[in-house]
Amino acid sequence: MIKVGIVGGTGYTGVELLRLLAIHPDAKVEVITSRSEAGLPVADMYPNLRGHYSDLAFSEPDVGRLAACDVVFFATPHGVAHALAAELLDAGTRVIDLSADFRLQDADEWARWYGQPHGAPELLSEAVYGLPEVARSKIKSARLIAVPGCYPTAVQLGLVPLLEAGWIEPRGIIADCKSGVSGAGRAAKVGSLFCETAESMKAYSVGTHRHHPEITQGLTAAAGQSVGITFVPHLTPMIRGIHATLYVRLNGNSLKRSDVEIQQLFEARYKGEPCVDVMPWQSCPETRSVRGANMCRLAIHRPEGGDLLVVLSVIDNLVKGASGQAIQNMNIMFGLDESAGLKFAGLMP
Amino acid sequence: MIKVGIVGGTGYTGVELLRLLAIHPDAKVEVITSRSEAGLPVADMYPNLRGHYSDLAFSEPDVGRLAACDVVFFATPHGVAHALAAELLDAGTRVIDLSADFRLQDADEWARWYGQPHGAPELLSEAVYGLPEVARSKIKSARLIAVPGCYPTAVQLGLVPLLEAGWIEPRGIIADCKSGVSGAGRAAKVGSLFCETAESMKAYSVGTHRHHPEITQGLTAAAGQSVGITFVPHLTPMIRGIHATLYVRLNGNSLKRSDVEIQQLFEARYKGEPCVDVMPWQSCPETRSVRGANMCRLAIHRPEGGDLLVVLSVIDNLVKGASGQAIQNMNIMFGLDESAGLKFAGLMP
Amino acid sequence: MIKVGIVGGTGYTGVELLRLLAIHPDAKVEVITSRSEAGLPVADMYPNLRGHYSDLAFSEPDVGRLAACDVVFFATPHGVAHALAAELLDAGTRVIDLSADFRLQDADEWARWYGQPHGAPELLSEAVYGLPEVARSKIKSARLIAVPGCYPTAVQLGLVPLLEAGWIEPRGIIADCKSGVSGAGRAAKVGSLFCETAESMKAYSVGTHRHHPEITQGLTAAAGQSVGITFVPHLTPMIRGIHATLYVRLNGNSLKRSDVEIQQLFEARYKGEPCVDVMPWQSCPETRSVRGANMCRLAIHRPEGGDLLVVLSVIDNLVKGASGQAIQNMNIMFGLDESAGLKFAGLMP
Amino acid sequence: MIKVGIVGGTGYTGVELLRLLAIHPDAKVEVITSRSEAGLPVADMYPNLRGHYSDLAFSEPDVGRLAACDVVFFATPHGVAHALAAELLDAGTRVIDLSADFRLQDADEWARWYGQPHGAPELLSEAVYGLPEVARSKIKSARLIAVPGCYPTAVQLGLVPLLEAGWIEPRGIIADCKSGVSGAGRAAKVGSLFCETAESMKAYSVGTHRHHPEITQGLTAAAGQSVGITFVPHLTPMIRGIHATLYVRLNGNSLKRSDVEIQQLFEARYKGEPCVDVMPWQSCPETRSVRGANMCRLAIHRPEGGDLLVVLSVIDNLVKGASGQAIQNMNIMFGLDESAGLKFAGLMP
Repeated sequence: MIKVGIVGGTGYTGVELLRLLAIHPDAKVEVITSRSEAGLPVADMYPNLRGHYSDLAFSEPDVGRLAACDVVFFATPHGVAHALAAELLDAGTRVIDLSADFRLQDADEWARWYGQPHGAPELLSEAVYGLPEVARSKIKSARLIAVPGCYPTAVQLGLVPLLEAGWIEPRGIIADCKSGVSGAGRAAKVGSLFCETAESMKAYSVGTHRHHPEITQGLTAAAGQSVGITFVPHLTPMIRGIHATLYVRLNGNSLKRSDVEIQQLFEARYKGEPCVDVMPWQSCPETRSVRGANMCRLAIHRPEGGDLLVVLSVIDNLVKGASGQAIQNMNIMFGLDESAGLKFAGLMP
Repeated sequence: MIKVGIVGGTGYTGVELLRLLAIHPDAKVEVITSRSEAGLPVADMYPNLRGHYSDLAFSEPDVGRLAACDVVFFATPHGVAHALAAELLDAGTRVIDLSADFRLQDADEWARWYGQPHGAPELLSEAVYGLPEVARSKIKSARLIAVPGCYPTAVQLGLVPLLEAGWIEPRGIIADCKSGVSGAGRAAKVGSLFCETAESMKAYSVGTHRHHPEITQGLTAAAGQSVGITFVPHLTPMIRGIHATLYVRLNGNSLKRSDVEIQQLFEARYKGEPCVDVMPWQSCPETRSVRGANMCRLAIHRPEGGDLLVVLSVIDNLVKGASGQAIQNMNIMFGLDESAGLKFAGLMP
Repeated sequence: MIKVGIVGGTGYTGVELLRLLAIHPDAKVEVITSRSEAGLPVADMYPNLRGHYSDLAFSEPDVGRLAACDVVFFATPHGVAHALAAELLDAGTRVIDLSADFRLQDADEWARWYGQPHGAPELLSEAVYGLPEVARSKIKSARLIAVPGCYPTAVQLGLVPLLEAGWIEPRGIIADCKSGVSGAGRAAKVGSLFCETAESMKAYSVGTHRHHPEITQGLTAAAGQSVGITFVPHLTPMIRGIHATLYVRLNGNSLKRSDVEIQQLFEARYKGEPCVDVMPWQSCPETRSVRGANMCRLAIHRPEGGDLLVVLSVIDNLVKGASGQAIQNMNIMFGLDESAGLKFAGLMP
Repeated sequence: MIKVGIVGGTGYTGVELLRLLAIHPDAKVEVITSRSEAGLPVADMYPNLRGHYSDLAFSEPDVGRLAACDVVFFATPHGVAHALAAELLDAGTRVIDLSADFRLQDADEWARWYGQPHGAPELLSEAVYGLPEVARSKIKSARLIAVPGCYPTAVQLGLVPLLEAGWIEPRGIIADCKSGVSGAGRAAKVGSLFCETAESMKAYSVGTHRHHPEITQGLTAAAGQSVGITFVPHLTPMIRGIHATLYVRLNGNSLKRSDVEIQQLFEARYKGEPCVDVMPWQSCPETRSVRGANMCRLAIHRPEGGDLLVVLSVIDNLVKGASGQAIQNMNIMFGLDESAGLKFAGLMP
């Protein structure tokens, strides 16, 4: 059994790690830290876990205990993994960071978007951006994984095939994204209250969301050239789910591509992928079809047969967009079946 | 008091007309028809109206009784107004049609999108597309009003200032729209069930929605030239509300326009409008801010100061997107205060 | 025009007062205070009010400015009205307190339930518990009104007819109540987050809710003898609405009462009441039928014709359960039409 | 592998069986019938199952193919299992019926509540009411299981310990129950539309719900004497979940029982039960804590230390209230680990 530690387990990605690892056949949570809740049994905070973790309580962060684990997940605000990762890596413990600390390869850019200096730039060279469908081989041998953000996962999986193939204009891409409220985390903020979010829809952080540079970085790598994207996130009255609606234009050489070719490009790119599902041409994936599941479901449209493609990409932001993808990374790193513990279907209805 | 008749009052736009007219100072509902519910008091079907319409019951459609009204609203599936409008107009009764029957000026195009011949092409020349912010003077003298659809209202109000001014490219416009479930009506369809729509988000009718030609027609008129738009509607887990996220590009001549100029363009265009509210630059309007209110709330963004503008436009699909706008038209037609009976604020939270 | 002041206008009852007063024909908000938001235009915090209060901003509490009003509403946490009411009353300003400060007639009991000494026991003798259907004549001449709590309004209106008539056992009453999340206010608490309350139902404060003594006090007064009630509130995934399901037993003398007599008891008790609606025998009122409306809708059931009655009572907790009822009190106090500004129907759907 | 057949797989209990069986280690769905959807791959109707049932399509009901299975689940409207069960049993196939066909032991009572003659009274003597916590030993050897209804499961598990112990009055029990909308099934009914159920709460079928006789039968068996219960179901704006709030009175002999004794009664009764969780005294279980999980979570309150107990009982109506409990029965019948395939935690948030 892989010994697992979790730093900062009181938020939604933390409890989701616990939920998923509770039925993982090859991993066991040994330590979960929370400064504020030290001493509290996890099942007292999360009654859905009653019966699953009878002996596990939140504990004060202790590097020694964490270093005794095979792998430590960080489900923390940004900055925490910066401070602790090196020590754990030195002790031979692998680190899977669900925060944004190691997602951007450029420390200066990180500092600009997060408003504080990067705390561990020396680790950036070995940090692997853990999108398995793009970086599987690097993940296998990685010691330090930066788990992609939720929006970046949905957007990249929707666009990577087209950008790698060079079929679309790399500028002028539009990502109109809709997220459930759990993306805002479990912090007590007025803006996340039921009465502020239910029965309403709004855009937010237009052009200024911190996932913007992460998306750009990933798409640029896929395209092999600079990519320009407008990213508009929207807050949607549901708990879980991201729906990315992606607008791209076929470039001159590719205007003649048939619908079938485009569909086949996606199907070939994701053939054999256990956590990406390319639906039939012109399908409309629902976020609920992946609720609770580690799956990205995609479909492609070409309105009126023109040069504009609309790619629809849905994930559960807490699973394929966070904790499930983190476990997928762990599975790869430790040579397990990539979807071990992640095989269940979405909860529908 | 204006004597009002309503044809087909059992759906959501019907009950919304009743709710709004219940407190209208100058209008009174005299007749409401429903073949299926004839004899049923309206308050038995809609208990929110108990105490408001003690004597009103649904009745069999009867042209004579309808023709005795000053104005008749059609809150019916398409085709019904085609059949009845002429007779009412001949009797001197004005007609405000909330269905799609008279929205498209081209009868052939209507037939193509609705899959049946246009039933009253001879009335098209006098039918006025009732978007008050665009056609107020024509509405004043109109006998037959086609109330704009919900998506078309949100999209047109968001784009008309830019198109009239000629500041944006008329091709390549993207309208990513999100609608509450009431847009699907009160029909008993599996796809509109709570368990099929709650806690989920999906696109639908990508490139094939019947509001597409209506939007194109309106934008083309505003631009004075052919307009090309990609329209992707999404089903959102809320009862009421449309959020239109509109992506347009400044054209060559207008790239130098400052943010202030763009904001002022909107403010000037809608100065004095009682039912359009231009929010401060870079605001994020919430659909709930207009819940139950006859208001379109707009805001403009220009991510990274580039050539792309993002216009956010929200309405309540049943009010400014249907029944409220219908009453606004009535007010104009009868020389009343344009927002008589429509002055209340949105229900928030 | 009645000059209105509001103390503490940033919460949900505050914004609801503003929404309702915006269309009140005889009242105008002159001052609204908030220490934390002083200087902020109210429409900046509550965009649904844009266009309604162009000149009104939150201001520091100032007794002088408040005392210049005809009436001051307190939409504050408990304790605040204790501190300020006397000074306003001395200045001739009437006070309508939406908090719990003057609801309990016994200062010691108040202190016990609220964990602090009562701050103005000398005012209790003149404070009128503002349930218009019970205390209309006292309200007319009152200077200080304690607006009933939301649960107490729904429960009392459902039981008062039976208790006044002496038809039911005064002990062993059960009030199983379900409330929307807005009852918890606008405070940033984890327990009120969308992700903690959506798609779930739970009981809370079983037997310990602060509305318990208020309910008991009101029912005891109606019965003319001591009343015993078990009150179990539940948190329900909706914004607005209270549904009280009340279980009572006919007493020995009344077992022979027919269904018709029971129904008539209610109808007679509430005949002419503008804000209580007795539905037909065995109806099932929906909370949405009163959403946004100042109405209590009631229905009575007698399962299997036995001795147990089930009374169903629904209100909008922010309207008839708070701000609407406060305005209803104001209307009575100032000799206006009792439902001035409160005539609109519920928002449905 | 156990060969599984499902009759009537297009409703919510059908898809839930598929979801749960997709990860069951010892069972495999061989046949799923639906007259209306014959030929359609199940994953086309339920995209959450894409990748799980690549070869399974709905087929016309065929007794021969069903009889080749080890066990057949009926997820059908009432009456269907009546017609088919005998033939399958004769063929040696075991039958687990999720409908109400075999829940009531008295054929006449069944006929009265369901408005049609009982179609298979000769099977009633061997039908086992499949509440494992009450009838485990009978289930082991049963050929025909009647899976309890959702409300009956929540209510019985909450009351059985007290009734078996004889501590409470068997008359005057109140079950105030709240259900998510999925309890109404996937039928296209206006009353189940999102816009008719979201943001609202209502009671329904007061005193007339078909689960009433089933509850009474089960409680009477537990008590060993006639039991009288008032059952009021409520429709709650959530997809899944039942919250039963149960009001009972300690009888004369038991009034002296301490809180600790009462708690211990429940803990002892359910010791070792894999699918019942007795929470600490005075807890408030949330339905979301069992969302998607085959678990009933209970807690007991005693307001003001009196004779009235309030038992709170939550389940997921589609899992422990239907499909999960059906599989739990299958596990017992086939000698498997009772919670095989049912070990996952609830989806929270």
